[in-house]
Amino acid sequence: MAHRVDINCDMGESFGVYSIGQDSQIMQYITSANIACGFHAGDPSVMRNTVTLALQHDVSVGAHPGYPDLLGFGRRYMHMTYREARDAVLYQLGSLGAFATALGTKIRHMKAHGVLYNAAAKDSELARALADAVFEYDRDIIFVALAGSLLVDAGRQAGLRVASEAFADRAYQSDGSLVPRGTPGAVIDDETLVAARVARMLKEGKVTSIDGHELDIKPDTICVHGDTPGAVQFARAMRAALESAGIEVVPLDKMLS
Amino acid sequence: MAHRVDINCDMGESFGVYSIGQDSQIMQYITSANIACGFHAGDPSVMRNTVTLALQHDVSVGAHPGYPDLLGFGRRYMHMTYREARDAVLYQLGSLGAFATALGTKIRHMKAHGVLYNAAAKDSELARALADAVFEYDRDIIFVALAGSLLVDAGRQAGLRVASEAFADRAYQSDGSLVPRGTPGAVIDDETLVAARVARMLKEGKVTSIDGHELDIKPDTICVHGDTPGAVQFARAMRAALESAGIEVVPLDKMLS
Amino acid sequence: MAHRVDINCDMGESFGVYSIGQDSQIMQYITSANIACGFHAGDPSVMRNTVTLALQHDVSVGAHPGYPDLLGFGRRYMHMTYREARDAVLYQLGSLGAFATALGTKIRHMKAHGVLYNAAAKDSELARALADAVFEYDRDIIFVALAGSLLVDAGRQAGLRVASEAFADRAYQSDGSLVPRGTPGAVIDDETLVAARVARMLKEGKVTSIDGHELDIKPDTICVHGDTPGAVQFARAMRAALESAGIEVVPLDKMLS
Amino acid sequence: MAHRVDINCDMGESFGVYSIGQDSQIMQYITSANIACGFHAGDPSVMRNTVTLALQHDVSVGAHPGYPDLLGFGRRYMHMTYREARDAVLYQLGSLGAFATALGTKIRHMKAHGVLYNAAAKDSELARALADAVFEYDRDIIFVALAGSLLVDAGRQAGLRVASEAFADRAYQSDGSLVPRGTPGAVIDDETLVAARVARMLKEGKVTSIDGHELDIKPDTICVHGDTPGAVQFARAMRAALESAGIEVVPLDKMLS
Repeated sequence: MAHRVDINCDMGESFGVYSIGQDSQIMQYITSANIACGFHAGDPSVMRNTVTLALQHDVSVGAHPGYPDLLGFGRRYMHMTYREARDAVLYQLGSLGAFATALGTKIRHMKAHGVLYNAAAKDSELARALADAVFEYDRDIIFVALAGSLLVDAGRQAGLRVASEAFADRAYQSDGSLVPRGTPGAVIDDETLVAARVARMLKEGKVTSIDGHELDIKPDTICVHGDTPGAVQFARAMRAALESAGIEVVPLDKMLS
Repeated sequence: MAHRVDINCDMGESFGVYSIGQDSQIMQYITSANIACGFHAGDPSVMRNTVTLALQHDVSVGAHPGYPDLLGFGRRYMHMTYREARDAVLYQLGSLGAFATALGTKIRHMKAHGVLYNAAAKDSELARALADAVFEYDRDIIFVALAGSLLVDAGRQAGLRVASEAFADRAYQSDGSLVPRGTPGAVIDDETLVAARVARMLKEGKVTSIDGHELDIKPDTICVHGDTPGAVQFARAMRAALESAGIEVVPLDKMLS
Repeated sequence: MAHRVDINCDMGESFGVYSIGQDSQIMQYITSANIACGFHAGDPSVMRNTVTLALQHDVSVGAHPGYPDLLGFGRRYMHMTYREARDAVLYQLGSLGAFATALGTKIRHMKAHGVLYNAAAKDSELARALADAVFEYDRDIIFVALAGSLLVDAGRQAGLRVASEAFADRAYQSDGSLVPRGTPGAVIDDETLVAARVARMLKEGKVTSIDGHELDIKPDTICVHGDTPGAVQFARAMRAALESAGIEVVPLDKMLS
Repeated sequence: MAHRVDINCDMGESFGVYSIGQDSQIMQYITSANIACGFHAGDPSVMRNTVTLALQHDVSVGAHPGYPDLLGFGRRYMHMTYREARDAVLYQLGSLGAFATALGTKIRHMKAHGVLYNAAAKDSELARALADAVFEYDRDIIFVALAGSLLVDAGRQAGLRVASEAFADRAYQSDGSLVPRGTPGAVIDDETLVAARVARMLKEGKVTSIDGHELDIKPDTICVHGDTPGAVQFARAMRAALESAGIEVVPLDKMLS
């Protein structure tokens, strides 16, 4: 059986006159676009443009809801109750869904942004808020969840299809969490090495932690970053390396049954 | 044939700790709720509560998009291009639509808020932006348009069902526009008189302007205000007076074919 | 020597069309107004009106900066770095200071709002951010700090005059923290009892905790709430009771040297 | 007598993660920085950084208030009453003033941003709102006004020192207004030509309109743009050309008595 993986990337994070990311260049190397919904980033016209761009490249449209904190770009923890988080995510799903509908497509997946995603990975109530919002909006939407985290459980309990996500270019600790940025070796910038790690995750279901332990991991999707220097180059090279290694790169909704 | 009219009211305009309007009391006297979508007023949890309340009273859920200006409550003119206005309205339709979907209903109508509505009534490009957003989102949504205004034309040209709106408690000038608030006689606060005016509009298709001319007007819906002292009392009395006059009060989607 | 205390209250928390609090009635019973600065509540015109109102009642003008979260009314924890918090508070001090200047007065004190205040009471870095912002803006401003908290230390280390605050109508636990709202006995609503507690704090420097321990507390200012039913009545009765008990009620800047 | 002019540029228009402009490079060629105050652009930390940068280059700090419309970058007309505009500007003056105070300087001038500036140039009430806000905050602040516009009159009537501004790189129509962008010849991109035009304005008090008429103009300050490709190069070349032409480039507060 062929090994398959989806490549996702955050997209549509510009706002008004402010431009960020290299969406039009990255789009050709990915299969799933996580599109910001106007809370941590993005605005209505950026959302339309980004959905249009995704369709041009046959990339699946996904929602990328975040905290209501444009100034902090969704990267500052905010306490939200279950109800506040669920309703904020539902609102954002709807807003992006309107552009998807207008342009003839649908939201295929949802991946929360920044600290909302990271906090929910460790907080079962917040994870449940995210999953419940997706279920209420459209139970066919695939729930992207950090591999091994509480998000995986929340998505399954809500009755959603769950895609496990691995970070291709990040080193893991022996407990399965990521080595914090800033630590030597935390980020792997050699795309051949990254592709080899991903290939091993898919073929053997394993990754070696930074301190030499073997971890179980079987990702459905891997994340590439669009806003770093060299991001386009990296995405292209990694995709080519994956294909050379016999991995098929396909969108989530063609992979998960 | 029976004469029929819909009664609409702006709803869900609270925000966070800030409460405005008397939604739970007014809801029982109306047939269509125009629910704010988070730009000029409203927030995700208020939207959920307001859709829930409308369903409890069997009131049709409608979108009430406004300018992105919470401080001005959507009552300050803002210049928006066709594209900006269309995308802002589409975004808001989607956000409310998500709550409608989650709660098992759909958006039945759209009425723009405040100065966005008034400006579009006189600006064909802005009117077109509003109508196009509705059409892109869901062409079954009824487009509420100030009777005799450019909004009526824009809605029809976009291929939408259009509901003409009259202001029951406001005096008209001989050109069909409203007598500005603050002018003596601009607001009619006797509900029997208001109901009589509405009954005549429906039965004869006429209203007398403040300076004594006969105007043609045949509304599908009339607007009541929810945020004034005495609003609940007024809504109840007007509805009773309409029914006494043999007018059937029904939601728009049961009236327009 | 006479015993003296200041009475402070949050003010100016309306926003646009949204009205909250009973500022014009409460103002006559207090000596220090904590005026919202547009982040968690308040807007430029509300700020002008509130400074004007304070001056009419000879009440000291204070800044009441909060988190940039109008939707959450500054009552949701947000992670902010030292730098983010310091700059956000400095910005808000300046904005209120402009209205004070325009109307011929100055900011006399600063009390942070809601969760920003509570979080800083337990987080020395955040407390330092608040104190440093005040020091940078105007070192004559009195720093209001929860009695016994890290805010007291931060204010003193920054070189500011510090006013210790007690909550007159709240029960204390034996470690000096407040009994959480919702716990039976957490809120004391008998104004005579409240005044007696305050009088004892001032005369003996003691308060009895909910479980019967004697705590040391010597407040410079006590807080009354303006947004609860009965707030006006309570403020009036408590002030009268304090004065009957021989306590002089004076603004902070006339008390601290 | 030497001819003198100030060069001003909009600065500090980044927001959160979003970066715009080339402030650190442009700063060395200008004498007055118009610093955004968080409404149309800018945030507290950007404001601190920009004031710091101005001081490092011995550039005068000025306030650059705009409409409360980050999404539109202050480039969309919004209707504001006299009171709303005055209070919004006063708020912004205060917020920037706090950073100036903290860093040991003062606001030397105020130039409104974008459409607020352009609208006030033609609307005497709005112009008066801007001038009154400056006067209320600090009557020593120089009021930058489009040469020949209603802003000049409003500033003088309020009792402020007024600096007339010319656009160095823009063609004029025979009525003194700017040729709209997009019209052929509207923008002059040859810096030698621009410097020659400025030199003639200063020495002869004249500029030739696009259709060949001689207009009277005697600017105190000229504007350069910081956010276009080639802006740094242009600013450097223009300043050099002005100095070669014997024009002294000095900040406004050293020029106006």
